[in-house]
Amino acid sequence: MNEEDEDAEDKVITFYDFPSKKDGVEGWNPFPVRIRLALKYKGIPFKTVWVEYPDVELTLKAAGIPPTTQWPDGKPWYTLPAIVDPSTGVALADSFAIAEYLDKTYPDKPLLMPSHTKALQTAFNEAVLAHVRPIFPFVLIKFCGLVHPVSEEYFRRTRIVLFGKSVDEMVPQGENAKEEWKKLEEGFGKIAGWMKKEDEFVMGDTVSFADFVIGGWLILSRLAWGNDSKEWKEIAEWHDGRWGKLVKSLEPYYGK
Amino acid sequence: MNEEDEDAEDKVITFYDFPSKKDGVEGWNPFPVRIRLALKYKGIPFKTVWVEYPDVELTLKAAGIPPTTQWPDGKPWYTLPAIVDPSTGVALADSFAIAEYLDKTYPDKPLLMPSHTKALQTAFNEAVLAHVRPIFPFVLIKFCGLVHPVSEEYFRRTRIVLFGKSVDEMVPQGENAKEEWKKLEEGFGKIAGWMKKEDEFVMGDTVSFADFVIGGWLILSRLAWGNDSKEWKEIAEWHDGRWGKLVKSLEPYYGK
Repeated sequence: MNEEDEDAEDKVITFYDFPSKKDGVEGWNPFPVRIRLALKYKGIPFKTVWVEYPDVELTLKAAGIPPTTQWPDGKPWYTLPAIVDPSTGVALADSFAIAEYLDKTYPDKPLLMPSHTKALQTAFNEAVLAHVRPIFPFVLIKFCGLVHPVSEEYFRRTRIVLFGKSVDEMVPQGENAKEEWKKLEEGFGKIAGWMKKEDEFVMGDTVSFADFVIGGWLILSRLAWGNDSKEWKEIAEWHDGRWGKLVKSLEPYYGK
Repeated sequence: MNEEDEDAEDKVITFYDFPSKKDGVEGWNPFPVRIRLALKYKGIPFKTVWVEYPDVELTLKAAGIPPTTQWPDGKPWYTLPAIVDPSTGVALADSFAIAEYLDKTYPDKPLLMPSHTKALQTAFNEAVLAHVRPIFPFVLIKFCGLVHPVSEEYFRRTRIVLFGKSVDEMVPQGENAKEEWKKLEEGFGKIAGWMKKEDEFVMGDTVSFADFVIGGWLILSRLAWGNDSKEWKEIAEWHDGRWGKLVKSLEPYYGK
């Protein structure tokens, strides 16, 4: 790298994301994945700073990025995704806040929330979360297989604080697993029911942040269970193959 | 009315709504109110058929309108709003299905779900419902003061089937009432938080079905507690007076 390249590199957005111990994984956590997709979709150059779970707080504090929520004991909770944009000096976290910032700051690039749909997209995110909720007890344990040991230890410890039990204990078993899997299918079915059969994206032919919200859950699922797993194949085929097709459509914005 | 008028009247959409025993009330139930607002906003002529609660099933069956859901015992549940459009022969219930039909059939009139936002608007409705849920125990008893005795009797009886207790027993009391009222304010606060401060409508300057969804809850609240009540005045003033202003903005589409 010569000096000019370094200068150019200094001017691009810094994007903070969770690394994976698996080869070739480009970001796996559904929340940062939204912003990875968004930056690529808008065609905004960025560099990734990979942050292990226990380092998030110090890293974000050092970058001047405020926390987005708080732990049950009231302490500030610093979360990813987060960005620093050297061209404006803006440093912020939270996927929706970042998406709104990117649209406002780069309005000439394709909009993440076109036609003034920010409020609708935010509500969409909430409603989707309510419907994909059954996925959590299945995938939290899978996170542990994706991250480095230092993050795994932190992740396991803090989930006990949040949920009152370990991510191992949360995994649905036997009949309960079947029921919860069925609920997940029904949840995705609700989302499919909002969309027109012929529409590939939430806003028809137009890609929007809502697709990255769903995409985040799908990309995580594919990584968690694996491309060739029974589970991912089922999800991909649910609702006329809608979810498998959506992930395919998002490929231009995900791979390196 | 001469014969020509009668012919014209026969060609307009029939809109099925719940009557009120109160003078000058133009529709009060938040679900039909959405369609009343929608028809007026689109400028589509219609006539209202007022249906008491115990007559909904027979009336809709006779009009060829299918049920939208089912009772806990599995029997079909016929609900309002419902419409019959003599120009197409279409007969259907469910506010979102009707809104979608109206946009498709009358695309030259202002769209209820512009810019291909049907999926987003449907998710918005779900997320709003989750946040305004604390209103139910307060207002169900108020329904009884708005409807004729024949509907009141039916409404009280069927709510016991649905909720396992009477609408009187559901009314929050004492400290609990304060807590639930606070939750309602927080719920509306969440919705306000999705919107930009300067935006009057969910889609900014553009009216959309999402405004009629919120509008339905607000119009009901104003009717239930009364224009001059402490409760309505509070709601109207929450979040920088956003809700009072929204109801005002919807007035052209609500009054006779």
